[in-house]
Amino acid sequence: MSVNPWWQQAAAELNDEARNLAWQHQNQLTKPPGALGRLEVLATELAAMSGQSRPELHHPHCIVFAADHGVVAQGVSAFPQAVTVEMLKNFVAGGAAISVLAGQNDFQLSVVNCGTAQPCDALQGVVHQPVAAGTADFSQQPAMTAAQAQAALTIGAGQLDLLHQAGCDLFMAGEMGIGNTSAASAMAALLLDLDVAGLTGPGTGVQGEALDHKTQVLSASVTRAQGSYNQPLDALIEVGGFEIGAIAGAYIRAAQLGIPVLVDGFITTSAALLAVHLNPSVRDWLLFSHGSAEPGHLLLLAALQAQPLINLDMRLGEGSGAGVALSLIRQALALHNNMATFAQAGVSGAED
Amino acid sequence: MSVNPWWQQAAAELNDEARNLAWQHQNQLTKPPGALGRLEVLATELAAMSGQSRPELHHPHCIVFAADHGVVAQGVSAFPQAVTVEMLKNFVAGGAAISVLAGQNDFQLSVVNCGTAQPCDALQGVVHQPVAAGTADFSQQPAMTAAQAQAALTIGAGQLDLLHQAGCDLFMAGEMGIGNTSAASAMAALLLDLDVAGLTGPGTGVQGEALDHKTQVLSASVTRAQGSYNQPLDALIEVGGFEIGAIAGAYIRAAQLGIPVLVDGFITTSAALLAVHLNPSVRDWLLFSHGSAEPGHLLLLAALQAQPLINLDMRLGEGSGAGVALSLIRQALALHNNMATFAQAGVSGAED
Repeated sequence: MSVNPWWQQAAAELNDEARNLAWQHQNQLTKPPGALGRLEVLATELAAMSGQSRPELHHPHCIVFAADHGVVAQGVSAFPQAVTVEMLKNFVAGGAAISVLAGQNDFQLSVVNCGTAQPCDALQGVVHQPVAAGTADFSQQPAMTAAQAQAALTIGAGQLDLLHQAGCDLFMAGEMGIGNTSAASAMAALLLDLDVAGLTGPGTGVQGEALDHKTQVLSASVTRAQGSYNQPLDALIEVGGFEIGAIAGAYIRAAQLGIPVLVDGFITTSAALLAVHLNPSVRDWLLFSHGSAEPGHLLLLAALQAQPLINLDMRLGEGSGAGVALSLIRQALALHNNMATFAQAGVSGAED
Repeated sequence: MSVNPWWQQAAAELNDEARNLAWQHQNQLTKPPGALGRLEVLATELAAMSGQSRPELHHPHCIVFAADHGVVAQGVSAFPQAVTVEMLKNFVAGGAAISVLAGQNDFQLSVVNCGTAQPCDALQGVVHQPVAAGTADFSQQPAMTAAQAQAALTIGAGQLDLLHQAGCDLFMAGEMGIGNTSAASAMAALLLDLDVAGLTGPGTGVQGEALDHKTQVLSASVTRAQGSYNQPLDALIEVGGFEIGAIAGAYIRAAQLGIPVLVDGFITTSAALLAVHLNPSVRDWLLFSHGSAEPGHLLLLAALQAQPLINLDMRLGEGSGAGVALSLIRQALALHNNMATFAQAGVSGAED
């Protein structure tokens, strides 16, 4: 008898009683029923996830997973590969967008090195768990071995076990890795059996002929990989990235541990797609923060039946869209927990 | 020689140099240019308004203007008129949505009674400046006299003079008044010469036959008013509300004083439409917070060439959409002011 791997074990169950109680409470608050729109839905979703009819949020945490991508040898990115490690320094020094948002919106931030091309083990403030010094060039060969793919998933799961022990009650993932929109596009094309051209966009700023070239590289890579594609994990092996695998593993373990997930943009959504293809029960625990300006994101969101909270034409990654949208979750919970009921305030209800 | 009334005096001018400096700064921050999307635009708009290339926000303020509407005698609202005063009590007691948001998002809140049907002069914590005990039933006669319309505009302007003296650097208006979606729909139909049916929606929850009845009442009211409509102020006189006039006056004076305005939903947008029709220079100072679930809101936003920041199906009023979206402005400014530049962080730029 074969035993399912850990990533196929079922997610925690949502608490429908808490959700129902939360809706009952919403309908007693001093507003026309439904007048807070999606903020009401958010509060009740958090109730179902937390098991509390009046859910609170005390320890949201963002982990930025970073790694490099061999496919950059094909000239698919506007920025040099050195930027991956340079940005790791910027994250821990507090100068990156996600660092600023962590301070502004009061969440914890940590950074995990899943395999940068340039050595950076001496960099303080980063958790170093490199799988390898970047993936192989997936236009020529599989990005990683099956053992590396499982290692990447396990890095994310291990981080979530630590967060769970520390009391984390909402998880966000960010990513850093020059070339990782290419990996995300190619993975999504394999998982969804879509033309990768419709999933390919500018990333950090590839335009014109360079974008045509990126699309050609990805089309050839997906064609190469389709010959070996038998199951979702093959998408990670063939054309994925170590940070994307780690994020998928983190999402799966978050769902198994009952920690709500706020997904960021294009690359993390490709990781969410992988996670849900590996384990459909994970979907229950995913909230979606924003619709990215990266054109393929809409297709990924549609495949996951996801409606993001904001659409601000952001396309930065790092977890920045989730970091911004967290403020809406906080406001949804503040309204849910702190508004007066009709009875408390002595306000008349609707007339029959 | 006739002198223009105060509400036609030009708005303050935007500072294009500060806007340009803000864009230069944005393009040096450690992200691909444009990757923060509309958050970048927001920060540079605030730069142009404040005259500071690194704008800050210290004293945002929301005023809820409240008044009653004679047209409720025609059965156009789902809630009884008593709710207007009951909600004033809820605002000052801290139990309303806008009260909770003020605490959550750190802005000042005040409440101005522009004319409720039930006397409430004894209610502490409210500024009482009633024009009259509610408007007349505009399905039968003009909602107010020309003198009352000017008085309503002046209430708003006077409040903004006080906020300006107190250092307010961003203004939000909210409104409370059972029946005021009817006034907003009818005003917008007159100002834009549109069929009021396309601008009429459920408000607090009117549905089915009751919504058909509301639409019929408003169609007849607009037809009556069109006979007397010669200039924008007539929209306020014929079918407006005291709180809507006060908000229009507040927006105009905010623009004249150089205070950025964050517009809320359907009713405040109808006030913004009136303000811009009275004085087109006001438009420069208006930011739009959210797209309401009230169906006419999209048409009003299009008429003002406005793209709101969020679309969360909210339809509560009170300033609640602006109160939520304020968090996005704070985040835009935090990113603009606190992210590291490429030079500061030692991060490589894009390759040629």
